Amino acid sequence: MSLIDALNWRYAVKKMNGQPVEQEKVDQIIQAALLAPTSSGLQPFKVIVVTNQELKEKIAPIAFNQSQIIDSSHLLIFAAQENYTDAGIDAVFNRMNAERGLPLEASDAYKAQLKGMLLSRSAEENFHHAAKQAYIGFGIAIAQAASLKVDATPMEGFNGPALDELLGLNEKGLKSVTLLPLGNRDESGDWLVNLKKVRTPLNEFVIEYK
Amino acid sequence: MSLIDALNWRYAVKKMNGQPVEQEKVDQIIQAALLAPTSSGLQPFKVIVVTNQELKEKIAPIAFNQSQIIDSSHLLIFAAQENYTDAGIDAVFNRMNAERGLPLEASDAYKAQLKGMLLSRSAEENFHHAAKQAYIGFGIAIAQAASLKVDATPMEGFNGPALDELLGLNEKGLKSVTLLPLGNRDESGDWLVNLKKVRTPLNEFVIEYK
Repeated sequence: MSLIDALNWRYAVKKMNGQPVEQEKVDQIIQAALLAPTSSGLQPFKVIVVTNQELKEKIAPIAFNQSQIIDSSHLLIFAAQENYTDAGIDAVFNRMNAERGLPLEASDAYKAQLKGMLLSRSAEENFHHAAKQAYIGFGIAIAQAASLKVDATPMEGFNGPALDELLGLNEKGLKSVTLLPLGNRDESGDWLVNLKKVRTPLNEFVIEYK
Repeated sequence: MSLIDALNWRYAVKKMNGQPVEQEKVDQIIQAALLAPTSSGLQPFKVIVVTNQELKEKIAPIAFNQSQIIDSSHLLIFAAQENYTDAGIDAVFNRMNAERGLPLEASDAYKAQLKGMLLSRSAEENFHHAAKQAYIGFGIAIAQAASLKVDATPMEGFNGPALDELLGLNEKGLKSVTLLPLGNRDESGDWLVNLKKVRTPLNEFVIEYK
């Protein structure tokens, strides 16, 4: 199946049937998010994988009791860094240079410039920046799920601070930004499954300079 | 090629060779961005496609003279809405209901709730929200390019306000958020092509609740 066919097949599943997604497919979806490009390779986000049913039941009321939280087999939570830190940036470049067999100081000039930019910005600005990197991974994870015919429901509708408190994310320097429950559509119980996918007409979506 | 293989194949190409990407492949990359899911289906972003070489030459100095701007065949610019508007939200739901053969008022309750939320927020907050939706499309476009073996360089390093002014984006209610030049890698001139792709170890990227 081409990726375009996969993207046409997928939709924001409203009702899942509780059947589990194979772990091997979940692993590929997480791997796709891991491989997503990010600004300067900083990867300022994590993916939290919840399979514990009791924890999903605690998360459901924080997310407007959307049934997919409970009926998914794997609830992915994308959480972005609250801010960038000097030590965190060092760790990224140290690992990169070590794995590439380069001297640790190989990217010192670039790193100094990057730190000058990021560490002078407000935490809020950096959080928005980190969240956007998480959204690249989120998009690529959605594409990977679709290409494996795994159903998924991208969700922003939840109380972020309450979820962060439940999971202790602030202590990890993280804030939740999106949810992606993975499961299998319940065709008989989903009001959206047979409705046409609607998008902006191509000629309104694209602006060309030829 | 699996999407994982494609994501391993891709990298942020630093030098392109000027050879053009087939229009059919560019069309599929744009189609993937069009099919990307967005919050409430609002699709608050556009894709600007620049093939005009003179315009690319004007854009290059706005983007630190990164050579891929000039040497790509198609420069994609993702631009997000500056804000949400009452009329814009109406237009989305009117089209959705019309194409689904539903009464125009079918989603009035949902739409009223959505407007209550979005139109009470600051323009800045809504722009961040719209930009994040653009990043989902950006991520999916990157995945689609890789799966077609089209080289691409995700870029945030450019002067957004200067680009917006050059293209008159503010008059369209848009602000540029990312660039994605599409082209073909110049293997002999690219310092990054043979360096190992480095990512956070999986056990640091994932937090599991079993």
